[in-house]
Amino acid sequence: MTIPLLNLFLLFSFFALSFSHETPNPQNNHHNHHAFPRPLIIEYSELEEELKLRCTSWRFAGEANNLSPWITVPKECAEHVKEYMTGKGYIYDLEIVSKEAGEFAKSIQLKDDGLDAWIFDIDETLLSNLPYYSAHGYGFEVFDHEKFDAWVEKGVALAIEPSLKLYEDVLNLGYKVILLTGRKESHRAVTVDNLINAGFRDWHQLILRSSDDKGKLAVIYKSEKRSEMEKEGYRILGNSGDQWSDLLGSSISVRSFKLPNPMYYIA
Amino acid sequence: MTIPLLNLFLLFSFFALSFSHETPNPQNNHHNHHAFPRPLIIEYSELEEELKLRCTSWRFAGEANNLSPWITVPKECAEHVKEYMTGKGYIYDLEIVSKEAGEFAKSIQLKDDGLDAWIFDIDETLLSNLPYYSAHGYGFEVFDHEKFDAWVEKGVALAIEPSLKLYEDVLNLGYKVILLTGRKESHRAVTVDNLINAGFRDWHQLILRSSDDKGKLAVIYKSEKRSEMEKEGYRILGNSGDQWSDLLGSSISVRSFKLPNPMYYIA
Repeated sequence: MTIPLLNLFLLFSFFALSFSHETPNPQNNHHNHHAFPRPLIIEYSELEEELKLRCTSWRFAGEANNLSPWITVPKECAEHVKEYMTGKGYIYDLEIVSKEAGEFAKSIQLKDDGLDAWIFDIDETLLSNLPYYSAHGYGFEVFDHEKFDAWVEKGVALAIEPSLKLYEDVLNLGYKVILLTGRKESHRAVTVDNLINAGFRDWHQLILRSSDDKGKLAVIYKSEKRSEMEKEGYRILGNSGDQWSDLLGSSISVRSFKLPNPMYYIA
Repeated sequence: MTIPLLNLFLLFSFFALSFSHETPNPQNNHHNHHAFPRPLIIEYSELEEELKLRCTSWRFAGEANNLSPWITVPKECAEHVKEYMTGKGYIYDLEIVSKEAGEFAKSIQLKDDGLDAWIFDIDETLLSNLPYYSAHGYGFEVFDHEKFDAWVEKGVALAIEPSLKLYEDVLNLGYKVILLTGRKESHRAVTVDNLINAGFRDWHQLILRSSDDKGKLAVIYKSEKRSEMEKEGYRILGNSGDQWSDLLGSSISVRSFKLPNPMYYIA
């Protein structure tokens, strides 16, 4: 990773405001202090490390649901998020969530009535839109509904492999799989085709946003749909989603599994 | 960080089982493949990077509440957790949670009735027991109640500075601060002294486990206490804790803030 000078500036302007002991101080400035005795390359690598840690903290805070709603990845973390999303970190994070979910799924003695359910979100949970986001700054650009819809309509999103493995395990254990997505009803056909082409099969139900659900916060829409499932008798044991709004609200599952996603936030 | 040979073994034995494509394969083994053309030092650094990423994933999974209850830090992540807890990563994670919580606290227009409340857990939220855990493997040793009690009775736990800042901000904004801890009633006096010596002041209530609460899961005990607060008329706006059992259950706060803690898990 290279850090252009702009980023040095952004690093300080972004973090200095929040943490007073990080504020540059001409009397005792870390950067000035080392300017002569140490080579510039060391300064860069220290700042790179600093930026990496701060952006990792930002990602952690998101995964722990500590952040207020956010519109885009912070400018100074755009490169970090890109590296994370295209590197091993994202894959390993997906793998451990899939593994933990699978172990929980196996640990439950299901009833014979076929009413034990596992809910999956679709985007960034079963299907990856990375080809789209790679062309749009990995969350650094403001989300564009029209462009994203055009991408969805291509029906070429990729399977998230660790999720596909969990999906198969959950199906084979006898759970009823319910897909609950923020995608619109008008995208049903392309979504079904995309899911099947990516290797997903035999879901019990695919719930998309109807015209009645338009404008509802995701957390409300999804809670309502889970409440309907419970009224139909389903026991919601597991729920996998990349947004906290997939998992929180009411009628929440016994265990929920938060997949990583530092690219966008849905309330 | 140095990785002794034992860790190489542990790395493979720990992760290989879960992720089949990571299983060593004599025909196509990454390590064997590079044994001649590349120096050993590169192998070590690749494995170090691998271990770091896997252990970061384990920490992330914990912070996102994806892990099943665990007893100790996984052996292969003991060094990683120690480095995290004693390095900048932990501090930055604490700082961003404090900052986000403070922004939320400020964003609320409090009522005049003095019933807007903010709950803080104590251990690893307001007070740090790092001197104790540094002598006990940073979560690598099985938790020892007697030894930990002896440490608590010294009353020398340290303030977590970013939490102290949030605490002051929340107090000054006019919230009623309620401390809700898993510590026992018999530790009230030493806890009060420790908190005051660490700079905490003017809490409205300090709730410790009474004999009635003995043996209750933390998530139950804390939910019951929050429910009592609500019955007394309090509106629980914020809740800061390092365990998900501080934050989940019933009578949950409007926003909750999960402080990092990869050293221990309380159900």
